[in-house]
Amino acid sequence: MEVKARAPGKIILSGEHAVVHGSTAVAASVDLYTSVSVRLPSSSDKDDTVKLQLKDLALEFSWPISRIKEALGEYVGPVSTPASCSAECLKSIASLVEDQNIPEAKIGLASGVSAFLWLYSSIRGFVPGNVVISSELPLGSGLGSSAAFCVAVSAALLPLSGSVNVDREHRGWKVYEQDELELLNKWAFEGEKIIHGKPSGIDNTVSTYGSMIKFRSGSLTLIKSNMPLKMLITNTKVGRNTKALVAGVSERTIRHPDAMSSVFNAVDSISKELSILIQSPVHDDLSLIEKEEKLAELMEMNQGLLQCMGVSHASIETVLRTTLKYKLVSKLTGAGGGGCVLTLLPNLLSGTVVDNVIAELESCGFECFIAGIGGKGVEILFGDSS
Amino acid sequence: MEVKARAPGKIILSGEHAVVHGSTAVAASVDLYTSVSVRLPSSSDKDDTVKLQLKDLALEFSWPISRIKEALGEYVGPVSTPASCSAECLKSIASLVEDQNIPEAKIGLASGVSAFLWLYSSIRGFVPGNVVISSELPLGSGLGSSAAFCVAVSAALLPLSGSVNVDREHRGWKVYEQDELELLNKWAFEGEKIIHGKPSGIDNTVSTYGSMIKFRSGSLTLIKSNMPLKMLITNTKVGRNTKALVAGVSERTIRHPDAMSSVFNAVDSISKELSILIQSPVHDDLSLIEKEEKLAELMEMNQGLLQCMGVSHASIETVLRTTLKYKLVSKLTGAGGGGCVLTLLPNLLSGTVVDNVIAELESCGFECFIAGIGGKGVEILFGDSS
Repeated sequence: MEVKARAPGKIILSGEHAVVHGSTAVAASVDLYTSVSVRLPSSSDKDDTVKLQLKDLALEFSWPISRIKEALGEYVGPVSTPASCSAECLKSIASLVEDQNIPEAKIGLASGVSAFLWLYSSIRGFVPGNVVISSELPLGSGLGSSAAFCVAVSAALLPLSGSVNVDREHRGWKVYEQDELELLNKWAFEGEKIIHGKPSGIDNTVSTYGSMIKFRSGSLTLIKSNMPLKMLITNTKVGRNTKALVAGVSERTIRHPDAMSSVFNAVDSISKELSILIQSPVHDDLSLIEKEEKLAELMEMNQGLLQCMGVSHASIETVLRTTLKYKLVSKLTGAGGGGCVLTLLPNLLSGTVVDNVIAELESCGFECFIAGIGGKGVEILFGDSS
Repeated sequence: MEVKARAPGKIILSGEHAVVHGSTAVAASVDLYTSVSVRLPSSSDKDDTVKLQLKDLALEFSWPISRIKEALGEYVGPVSTPASCSAECLKSIASLVEDQNIPEAKIGLASGVSAFLWLYSSIRGFVPGNVVISSELPLGSGLGSSAAFCVAVSAALLPLSGSVNVDREHRGWKVYEQDELELLNKWAFEGEKIIHGKPSGIDNTVSTYGSMIKFRSGSLTLIKSNMPLKMLITNTKVGRNTKALVAGVSERTIRHPDAMSSVFNAVDSISKELSILIQSPVHDDLSLIEKEEKLAELMEMNQGLLQCMGVSHASIETVLRTTLKYKLVSKLTGAGGGGCVLTLLPNLLSGTVVDNVIAELESCGFECFIAGIGGKGVEILFGDSS
């Protein structure tokens, strides 16, 4: 048999960077997915390994079950209480990862493979299985690809652990059981910790629950979007150093405390306004257009404030300038300094305009995605493996 | 004999737009001048007219003294008490301007010609004279060309009125007598009122006194720059509607009062910090570089906040992006929506870089000026007319 799961990526709608200094931020799911398929070996199958296949990267890893059990046996606890991978356990995992000779150019994947091994052993135990992963999310560009990976892996494995209730008779993709989301989210967070050290927990929570999340000073509130929302996401493909960008904002805050504190207050007001706007009901096309205009204005304002913090980049400015020609408003999303840029696509915007914008952006070497914002969280699908 | 005067233009270093909402702003003189030459007819001369020649525009106007006296005789008061041109008087002036058949395409000059007639009659009286005006300042692009015009005209005429003390023996350009600046500035302001309706008084004050001015809620403070400062001024040549831009910021403030009030507070902090920075002494190259970096950062922050207010423009973004390639920081100056952009030119920057930036900007159809910032105010020169 086969279990599939798909988990969405995330964007930051407002408040990135300022959230580090106490402002409210809003994150939302995007309907670009990381998909995981777990196939159990049939009883006749003699294969006694765990296989991990990263389809987009054309990489495949496998470990004998005995090898994994030897390395991690003493660290793995019960599925019902998600546990952190200790420093010692991480060392053991590292030795498993080293077995695989990951190509030097892709060594950044090692932490993802480690997270996989921890989640697989903890949730599924020391039994063979074949896991195939593919993703529509660009890696390391701020769209929450690692969280979607951890959520999707956890979501596909949990139904096989016997610890969660699942309706296996359902045909087609189904939303994960509400009751089980908390456990799933906790496991995904443990995976994220292996990849990121100290993740905020926002990415995995958005990927798990979908919709939107308002967060401030570490407390997260799920909010329900009442607005059909579509964005063009442009990946500038310019790599960023998130830590350096965050440090840059902090240093600027030390140099100009009064000005920056007002800037963070402005961002806080924008995030609060945006979250109210998104939750308020849409009555008709006219009220939708009005809401879109207000949202565009809030995005433009937030972008100006991010420029004020010094986290923009020439590539981001190019996207802004290009979309502005089509009267479309954009803002960077995430850390800035490259990475991804959001462009609001009003619901009544003509497809031709969208095509032209995309053609122009792609001619600059950027990669474009059209994504629905604030949709479903993680989903699963049961099928026969064939 | 001949009297020449030259009056500098101005830039807004920080705080444009926000100043309307109570924030501090800083303006500075730029060493781009409007020059006026007044020649008195020799006693043998039979010419009984006032001539005004606008050299850059290849326009010349003239009025018989009798015609001017007939129109304005009853309105003109003493030189020592600068008086506003009343609505009735303005009508009389309008009839004088109509005599001249200003070309339709240059009808915007009519208010400047009106201001000239008021200043000439009020300061010089109803006597013949030949006034030639030329300017390095682009018209109507926010560099204070109209104020420089009023200041230079008043400065050249006042020594001929007998109401101010002047050392006519001085050779070369000399700064205007300190004691007389107030009277001069008041007259220039009366001219500005004819051109702009309700001017802030900042442009004429900067052009008169030079250096820099900090202003907030209508109160102006002269500040002394202790920093050699050079800017590249790029005229995007995109015409703006200042009133519409100011109204746009006000409307945005009504829609997002909390966020915008924080934005204005941030601008206020930036202007205050900038004015302290500029006044503090420079000890050596190192401290100059440090100050320049801080100033660049404040300019970048202010630009982000202006973008947040919605007064940027594609042409401005092009300048920002172009200068950013050379690691130079820019901000719009004045109303935005086109107009002029400032780029800080660090004192140790190589001339080759400057040449390349200018070449690239001019290839976009922009016009570039290099200007010293915060220099002298209005100056005069006495000479024999020959």
